[in-house]
Amino acid sequence: MAKAKVAFSKEYLVVAQNASGRDLNVPVYKFKSNLPGPKVYLQSSIHGAEVQGNIVLFHLLKHLQGADLRGEITLVPNCNPVGSNLKSGEYTLGRFDPVNGQNWNRAYHYDKDLIAQYANSINPDSDIDKIKTEYRSKLKVSIEKKLNNIWGLGLAECLNLKLQKMALEADIVLDLHNGPVSTRHIYVPEYAQHSAKFFNIPNVILIPNVFSGALDEATFCPWWSLKNALQEKFPEKEWDFGVEAFTVEMGSQEVIEFEAGVADSISILTYLSHKKCFVTKQYSPKEMIRRAVYLKDYKVMFSQFGGMVEYVAKPGTVVEKGGVLARVLNIDELDNEKATFEVIAPCDLIPILHFPSASVFGGTQLYKCFTNYFEL
Amino acid sequence: MAKAKVAFSKEYLVVAQNASGRDLNVPVYKFKSNLPGPKVYLQSSIHGAEVQGNIVLFHLLKHLQGADLRGEITLVPNCNPVGSNLKSGEYTLGRFDPVNGQNWNRAYHYDKDLIAQYANSINPDSDIDKIKTEYRSKLKVSIEKKLNNIWGLGLAECLNLKLQKMALEADIVLDLHNGPVSTRHIYVPEYAQHSAKFFNIPNVILIPNVFSGALDEATFCPWWSLKNALQEKFPEKEWDFGVEAFTVEMGSQEVIEFEAGVADSISILTYLSHKKCFVTKQYSPKEMIRRAVYLKDYKVMFSQFGGMVEYVAKPGTVVEKGGVLARVLNIDELDNEKATFEVIAPCDLIPILHFPSASVFGGTQLYKCFTNYFEL
Amino acid sequence: MAKAKVAFSKEYLVVAQNASGRDLNVPVYKFKSNLPGPKVYLQSSIHGAEVQGNIVLFHLLKHLQGADLRGEITLVPNCNPVGSNLKSGEYTLGRFDPVNGQNWNRAYHYDKDLIAQYANSINPDSDIDKIKTEYRSKLKVSIEKKLNNIWGLGLAECLNLKLQKMALEADIVLDLHNGPVSTRHIYVPEYAQHSAKFFNIPNVILIPNVFSGALDEATFCPWWSLKNALQEKFPEKEWDFGVEAFTVEMGSQEVIEFEAGVADSISILTYLSHKKCFVTKQYSPKEMIRRAVYLKDYKVMFSQFGGMVEYVAKPGTVVEKGGVLARVLNIDELDNEKATFEVIAPCDLIPILHFPSASVFGGTQLYKCFTNYFEL
Amino acid sequence: MAKAKVAFSKEYLVVAQNASGRDLNVPVYKFKSNLPGPKVYLQSSIHGAEVQGNIVLFHLLKHLQGADLRGEITLVPNCNPVGSNLKSGEYTLGRFDPVNGQNWNRAYHYDKDLIAQYANSINPDSDIDKIKTEYRSKLKVSIEKKLNNIWGLGLAECLNLKLQKMALEADIVLDLHNGPVSTRHIYVPEYAQHSAKFFNIPNVILIPNVFSGALDEATFCPWWSLKNALQEKFPEKEWDFGVEAFTVEMGSQEVIEFEAGVADSISILTYLSHKKCFVTKQYSPKEMIRRAVYLKDYKVMFSQFGGMVEYVAKPGTVVEKGGVLARVLNIDELDNEKATFEVIAPCDLIPILHFPSASVFGGTQLYKCFTNYFEL
Repeated sequence: MAKAKVAFSKEYLVVAQNASGRDLNVPVYKFKSNLPGPKVYLQSSIHGAEVQGNIVLFHLLKHLQGADLRGEITLVPNCNPVGSNLKSGEYTLGRFDPVNGQNWNRAYHYDKDLIAQYANSINPDSDIDKIKTEYRSKLKVSIEKKLNNIWGLGLAECLNLKLQKMALEADIVLDLHNGPVSTRHIYVPEYAQHSAKFFNIPNVILIPNVFSGALDEATFCPWWSLKNALQEKFPEKEWDFGVEAFTVEMGSQEVIEFEAGVADSISILTYLSHKKCFVTKQYSPKEMIRRAVYLKDYKVMFSQFGGMVEYVAKPGTVVEKGGVLARVLNIDELDNEKATFEVIAPCDLIPILHFPSASVFGGTQLYKCFTNYFEL
Repeated sequence: MAKAKVAFSKEYLVVAQNASGRDLNVPVYKFKSNLPGPKVYLQSSIHGAEVQGNIVLFHLLKHLQGADLRGEITLVPNCNPVGSNLKSGEYTLGRFDPVNGQNWNRAYHYDKDLIAQYANSINPDSDIDKIKTEYRSKLKVSIEKKLNNIWGLGLAECLNLKLQKMALEADIVLDLHNGPVSTRHIYVPEYAQHSAKFFNIPNVILIPNVFSGALDEATFCPWWSLKNALQEKFPEKEWDFGVEAFTVEMGSQEVIEFEAGVADSISILTYLSHKKCFVTKQYSPKEMIRRAVYLKDYKVMFSQFGGMVEYVAKPGTVVEKGGVLARVLNIDELDNEKATFEVIAPCDLIPILHFPSASVFGGTQLYKCFTNYFEL
Repeated sequence: MAKAKVAFSKEYLVVAQNASGRDLNVPVYKFKSNLPGPKVYLQSSIHGAEVQGNIVLFHLLKHLQGADLRGEITLVPNCNPVGSNLKSGEYTLGRFDPVNGQNWNRAYHYDKDLIAQYANSINPDSDIDKIKTEYRSKLKVSIEKKLNNIWGLGLAECLNLKLQKMALEADIVLDLHNGPVSTRHIYVPEYAQHSAKFFNIPNVILIPNVFSGALDEATFCPWWSLKNALQEKFPEKEWDFGVEAFTVEMGSQEVIEFEAGVADSISILTYLSHKKCFVTKQYSPKEMIRRAVYLKDYKVMFSQFGGMVEYVAKPGTVVEKGGVLARVLNIDELDNEKATFEVIAPCDLIPILHFPSASVFGGTQLYKCFTNYFEL
Repeated sequence: MAKAKVAFSKEYLVVAQNASGRDLNVPVYKFKSNLPGPKVYLQSSIHGAEVQGNIVLFHLLKHLQGADLRGEITLVPNCNPVGSNLKSGEYTLGRFDPVNGQNWNRAYHYDKDLIAQYANSINPDSDIDKIKTEYRSKLKVSIEKKLNNIWGLGLAECLNLKLQKMALEADIVLDLHNGPVSTRHIYVPEYAQHSAKFFNIPNVILIPNVFSGALDEATFCPWWSLKNALQEKFPEKEWDFGVEAFTVEMGSQEVIEFEAGVADSISILTYLSHKKCFVTKQYSPKEMIRRAVYLKDYKVMFSQFGGMVEYVAKPGTVVEKGGVLARVLNIDELDNEKATFEVIAPCDLIPILHFPSASVFGGTQLYKCFTNYFEL
């Protein structure tokens, strides 16, 4: 078996400019093997407070140093230098642009028309690899056109597009996030459901072919849509482009844990190993119960009151219908029976994450929950 | 000519609850005539820093006290008690929910399917007034269903829906806003272009039948869509429901000016007078040049740099292609010719508003501009 | 033994007005016994994100309902309606006025000159109780004078003074706080060191007679200073006014725990029982190691770098000189030995609290630590 | 007359590190003449939203290129890279550390004991220049000791001390600020009152020898105190160290104006010319009325209500007792005579600056005003 020769590089990509007129850049670590294999792109901390992914990339990088890699792996830690550095009080206000509220993970590019148009240009005996190259080149042009708009571009959009230009080249894209107070979970496109069991992650959300602005969707929707278009047009052929993309939620925001990051990195290496990113198999998936929901069954429980909340139900635990999710204190009624009340589970569910602060206004996302979940 | 008898009422509507568990309410001032006429709904300050509209409602209310009103006018000043009270530094962080970045003016309700469904139930000789009543009742049920969701509702959505329930009853809806540093302008649905000349507002943006979450769209899109569906189905009849909705931008945020508010209120009274909201005509529109653009030609100029900006071009003035919009200081190059540079107009344009701070990151909305504008 | 007759009342005190012109008030729960005894004042959440104290007051209140109280106890939960409701991202920006950065617990009143002046008016055979009444009345006038300033008063100062007017009447004042991520600890004036062992709190900070703006200091400094002045002037008499004040830190901010609050309330009841606030003894102090430091030995460890931090040393644990406090990730050096480094304890210490976010700029309070601590 | 030979240099000083672990630096522009003369230090934007000073430094720098300089001038624009880049909404949250509320201009170093100690070491025939050198060296050691604290240092303190180390070397220190909405004014130490007339600034605040943390105080208090100590000890000798420091308020925050900056720079050059910083006189002071107050008469008018405010009295204009300062709208009383009320001047005054937002809580600094002012 051939031993891989792997070239390593570290570069910096300028993604923004601050009010002092200084360039803000992100580090781009790249391992490139002489052996053919999938191209992989990983980034972390597009939401500035979601930092555990950086630890995961650190452990991955250590593993890759000396690993028998095939193909190519690109790692972009701390990929949002604006969001990562925006403090408001002691916490990091990293989920949206402080100027306009734009979510940092909702301005990736998706051009529905381009897909339809390109699908029309394909004939049934086109070579899959050639299609991939050609399609990528068209998607890239489409992104670059946006980046070069004479009227400029919004900050989040500009950041997203510059990252997406790199991610676009990859067959496998992993966007590392955290929930507020959260158990580990992963977003998987429905067509790649079979891949979910190669991650050591017990909670799986299966998402449809709908673009809402995130990197995983921006990565797989064009290929999924193209496949659908071609499959319908030329049903006799199996159209598989081998592109998969995931949003991986590595626990709670505002926290890094080096030790937990080792397990997180092994989870990813197990999947990559399955995808033949290494000459030799690295890890086997852990035996564990993996529960899944369709996105429509991943429910938000909003507060229907303002007050102070104890989150009684812990993320990842099963709660039956009628069980207590949260207990609320009402400071105006401490002397009577309305002093406290409970938030009750409206059906059987598994809370996956909850709001990180005890103080809530009405209309706050208290919990996000699996309902109608099933074992994978 | 009959003299109107007008009943006045003031009530409070609870729209949210804060973290202390206290109800947050908005005042609802209502004038109701015994004479038939249009129902009008006005609100101000859904974006908490945009406060001039409150002054305008104050002057309107003074005018209405004793006026010969027909129909009904509802005034809801300071309609967002969360956004109005959120300070961050000396300014009001009132444009979006501080928790999740949700724009306070983007969570109104629109149900495309309901429209199609309802259109199908109409026959060509249905009475317009009966349709209006029935349709409103269906829209209301649709909103209430959302409000009563067992899983709850987001804060902005809840606020928006409670206001929309009131606005829904009106034939005329005016949502009073301000730009950052801004000249007066108004958003008008394309089909109501003829109404634009009854406001004393020199800059008019004509918007298509597309719902993006704002109150004006949430108000007119259902009627416009219904009209389109019926017109196509029964072309022989003229389907006109007489509903109009506008977003009116009353100058710059963070500022109130009592005197300027008088003119603003007269501008609105002029339009209402034209719509027969009064027994006797109140005001005639001012002779003035009114310039309009289609929404697609209302362009955002983003900064393609970070730095300190002097906004050279003043809102409302004509700038020719190649003219200077802004001048930028680069603090790292004060000793050489790169110390300053200019932002140039890429085409003939009229800046309508600009960013309110000299300090900008790359990707900031420097200006919003009329291009390809024309006289109304 | 006489059974107490206890009157209960609930009132609301207006402490501020928001930008909507609405009064903001705090609930004031009061238990007043017909039997003589100390007056006690407790408040919680002057820092808006420090919410556990509200739970403690809830449990206290439940205990007091039916208890054999002597004297009087006033409970003011959620005493800062501005700070409690200021969200920035998902967290509560409750430590300072968002407009000007003023710490909500640093604007209480202290008038050095008044103390000196009053001390001069005392003769050696003045009655202690009469002095207390008279002195309180002078302090009250001094506060009211400030509150009635024709030029007005800052928001934090106004809030603080209105609360202080109530606290001023009490012999015992407890201000309930939380640390960021924190073990339980208490601030005790040096002269009341003997009282520390009546709380079930393992970590005690002994503070000198220095006023820095906080409520505990504002409460005891005037009495401590008066005592010192009189003791020096009339050394033959023991001048003891029996006033004690504490800042009690009930764990971590942003969190409420009903169960833990029971223990917290018992800790306070134990102290109050010792101070003869009840006809019958309620609780005995728990046997536990209580460690103390002088304030000068309660050290802040600042970050001397920016980066992502894992807080290795847990609050409340003993760390020896040279032990690891924290581990830091450097995202620009993931490929080499500078990828991580450790923050080391410069001496034997006990970390009491640490910063609640993994992301830190240089100059951030990483830890606050006991050094040179001793057993009480 | 000798022509000066002036060396120019540009360097960068690292003053902080962000959460990405990246160094944050400030540019340091320096002109050094071969001819003896005063050392001058200027900085701008320590409060991140106060940006006009950067324009002034730009114009000064252009003037200095080729000027007949004596001594040495150091220019540090945009001297707070943290504050300058902290957006919250559209504005810059640049007045305090977002983590802890620490004002960026209140953590400079002042060591009272060192002064007393050093004064004791002086004998009456010590040479002034030697004293200056020796004293500076001691102050520098004192700052460096703080910077090298094994426990680290707070972010604002660290930034301040690094800047102060440069400012310490200068005889003349100018710290360029802006007010919120403000007319131009200047803070002048009482002993340097005669220098006020060399600036073209109509409003002068005379400040006493009290250290409150700002750079101007940190600069002049040590010298003023030393002078006082020596003057008392050796009254026969005139102890003058020739050190002056000013906080110059160049109009309103959040705004840059290139043209206005030219006049601002001429104002400063006029003063510097008077202080013999140039071989030939550059400018003469403008004839203008200069009004002054003692700091105790520079009054803050706080809002005693929450609501929406029109700032009727413009900064820099004379308002008589009883005149209208502001007009307030009360949205809950639009239908009656309490809809609006006025804020009245309690005495003759000149408003110098006002709050930049119409929306105020109770306890907001509405205006800062000259009272008991006099002509210089």
